Amino acid sequence: MGSSFKKIVVKQYWAKTVESILSSPVSSIRGISDGDAAKLDDAINVKTVKDLAENRYFHGAKAVLAATNQPNFDPGPPLEWVKVFDSAPDYTSKWPDKFRWEFGPIFYRGRLDGAARILIVGQDPSTDEALSRRAFVGRSGQRLQGLLRKLGITYSYVIVNAFLYSIYGQFDHEMEAISTDPLVMDYRNTLCDKILSENPIEAVLTIGAGARHAVQHWPHPSNLHVSNLVHPSAKTKLVLNNWNQELPILLQIIKPEIGVTPDPTPYTLEWKPSDYMDIPRRDLPFGVPSWFGTQGTKSHRDGPKRIIWEA
Amino acid sequence: MGSSFKKIVVKQYWAKTVESILSSPVSSIRGISDGDAAKLDDAINVKTVKDLAENRYFHGAKAVLAATNQPNFDPGPPLEWVKVFDSAPDYTSKWPDKFRWEFGPIFYRGRLDGAARILIVGQDPSTDEALSRRAFVGRSGQRLQGLLRKLGITYSYVIVNAFLYSIYGQFDHEMEAISTDPLVMDYRNTLCDKILSENPIEAVLTIGAGARHAVQHWPHPSNLHVSNLVHPSAKTKLVLNNWNQELPILLQIIKPEIGVTPDPTPYTLEWKPSDYMDIPRRDLPFGVPSWFGTQGTKSHRDGPKRIIWEA
Repeated sequence: MGSSFKKIVVKQYWAKTVESILSSPVSSIRGISDGDAAKLDDAINVKTVKDLAENRYFHGAKAVLAATNQPNFDPGPPLEWVKVFDSAPDYTSKWPDKFRWEFGPIFYRGRLDGAARILIVGQDPSTDEALSRRAFVGRSGQRLQGLLRKLGITYSYVIVNAFLYSIYGQFDHEMEAISTDPLVMDYRNTLCDKILSENPIEAVLTIGAGARHAVQHWPHPSNLHVSNLVHPSAKTKLVLNNWNQELPILLQIIKPEIGVTPDPTPYTLEWKPSDYMDIPRRDLPFGVPSWFGTQGTKSHRDGPKRIIWEA
Repeated sequence: MGSSFKKIVVKQYWAKTVESILSSPVSSIRGISDGDAAKLDDAINVKTVKDLAENRYFHGAKAVLAATNQPNFDPGPPLEWVKVFDSAPDYTSKWPDKFRWEFGPIFYRGRLDGAARILIVGQDPSTDEALSRRAFVGRSGQRLQGLLRKLGITYSYVIVNAFLYSIYGQFDHEMEAISTDPLVMDYRNTLCDKILSENPIEAVLTIGAGARHAVQHWPHPSNLHVSNLVHPSAKTKLVLNNWNQELPILLQIIKPEIGVTPDPTPYTLEWKPSDYMDIPRRDLPFGVPSWFGTQGTKSHRDGPKRIIWEA
């Protein structure tokens, strides 16, 4: 396999395994002398090829560059986040009749590169989410995206859910108990802690009862602003009255993105087309159809083992 | 926008634009002192944040790390390939009743980073392909993957299709004419040319009649080996007799990957479980369910505008 790296490493490493190249000194890379390697170690504590590949300054600089050079899709989580997601507990086998586990877990949508200023916690994913493997991309997601746009926010957020899997029925007392079971809660809090530590979070938005409950059970700094929002799929007046209450508060707290003008106009008491925003293509995986994440939800369930997707 | 990078850059840069951060010295990154910056410049000629983000040693080390199968998914095409795919002609509007255009185009599966040694040309995508936005991932793809495994190949290939969209019916004379219409053919040949110029291609495999016809109309070097394979969804004996003919020829031409032992055992005249291989996770987008690309095709069509996906 080493032969794939002839352009990267010097000849004596061509026949080595990937693992042994990774643990080799950075001077195994073509163009880095022993002297350069010593300076790299001294400056940024990089010794091995693996150290270099994972160096946080490099990844920080890359995140800044990515903000200008963004491919118009989400390539998926950075490596360290992949590890965190791969370590998710499979709690569906503990409560197999409480979760629709068949289509697997959904982890996030938005920025995992340190550029998030709003942490959004949802409740559980549905079918458009299973299709795109991203949170909040259907009709509710497009309403949420409209609220973010009113705040002057078009990309600087990250969304996670209280549950990785779709739940059966409503968020009731039984689900409250499951949600605070250490198996579920500890992992979710790990995600929130990591997001908070890596991002300049200005506010947390909880979307729906399950999310509000989850954040109540997340030990977070007391000065971190939390807005509890009614879920966009709830009764229209309930949602829009609540969002109208929270909107001016959030406009005070959240700085709009540079070049984006907030829109403080209150919602009317009906959903209007302008209350929706398309899910940004940069939040979706490569190649999804152009209509995905626009004009409402495009799929529904037909039993736990079947999703119907409509163009 | 600069304020999104509070965790990355020091305070005096928080209010700056992305562009001005990129042209700032690397000491604007939190944790890099002026002295560290001087050493970085001296060692690897990195002066600005942009230099660091784009540094070729970092990217080389990252490519080695990526080969360890982490992340175990395909992030999507590199930026230059995104541009090529974004420039695809929408030929479905010229022949709207010949293509199932509703779920959008499918472009590729496999390596677009220069590591491909086999170019595989298929005919047209189906429903599992629409779900994963990758070519040849259902039952036929798993049979093809089994053939590649017999050749000692587990990752060093790239797959494109004769058509970006699913076609109605069989590849008949009318489709032959469409396939050689410049609107379709020129773009397809551009893809094949780019793959050939960027990869050490040892052989081309065409899968099915539409693919064979496409490669016949691709001007390619006369010494490039082309094997025309019967499509894995054709009648079993037809497929396996043909594959048994081609297998020893391909084993002569294609070098197995280091550490992978080819299997020259001929196929029997029935498909056996061992003739299938799971689609590698590194070929699929982040987060698809663990069963996707295994145990056959998991979806089917219910009219042109509806795909049913079954767990």
